[in-house]
Amino acid sequence: MPKQLPITATGACCSPLAREPLSADQAVELSQLFKAMSDPVRLRLLSLIASHAGGEACVCDLTDAFDLTGPTISHHLKVLRESGLITGERRGTWIYYRVHPEVLARLSAVLVPGNTGVLA
Amino acid sequence: MPKQLPITATGACCSPLAREPLSADQAVELSQLFKAMSDPVRLRLLSLIASHAGGEACVCDLTDAFDLTGPTISHHLKVLRESGLITGERRGTWIYYRVHPEVLARLSAVLVPGNTGVLA
Repeated sequence: MPKQLPITATGACCSPLAREPLSADQAVELSQLFKAMSDPVRLRLLSLIASHAGGEACVCDLTDAFDLTGPTISHHLKVLRESGLITGERRGTWIYYRVHPEVLARLSAVLVPGNTGVLA
Repeated sequence: MPKQLPITATGACCSPLAREPLSADQAVELSQLFKAMSDPVRLRLLSLIASHAGGEACVCDLTDAFDLTGPTISHHLKVLRESGLITGERRGTWIYYRVHPEVLARLSAVLVPGNTGVLA
């Protein structure tokens, strides 16, 4: 059962934060996604998955990039999954991970600087 | 003296993380910016500053939005300044804050989902 994306549920991040002030609820949702990306290992995992051929990767594709134990990698993947940034699907022996491109797209949109410093 | 932006110094974030894997150094730099944005109060402060008329705001413009003490607001503004997301300039009684639109633009660019899931 795919985890529901809070960011999709409320459309919290479609307006750039430089255009109008975030509401308290929007800020809570977005801060949880940024918190998931506030660790360099998780950012590299996210990037490895997103840039992997076919747009998906199993943990067998990811571990060689790190001098970390399997359980540590798994912990970080779990945090990314729970945040809604990636999904995991078990096929045979492995779980295959994909990013949610719509979540990345919305985070990208919310950070567009917009008219900052231009409007009087 | 403006704080040097680590993200400008290395151009760490101009290529979308979905296009090619982030290096370890890039991931460390980006994770520090996302960490600064991993708190809902800081995100709202960032948004209030970025969306304020003229693109800048003093602490006198920011405190009414929160049920928080002045020192708590000041702490969060300090974290945002130290991350390089905003600058502060003292003029008379107040410090006026602006976002670094180029930092937001680069974070936005790094999160563009790109060809995720399309390339084979």
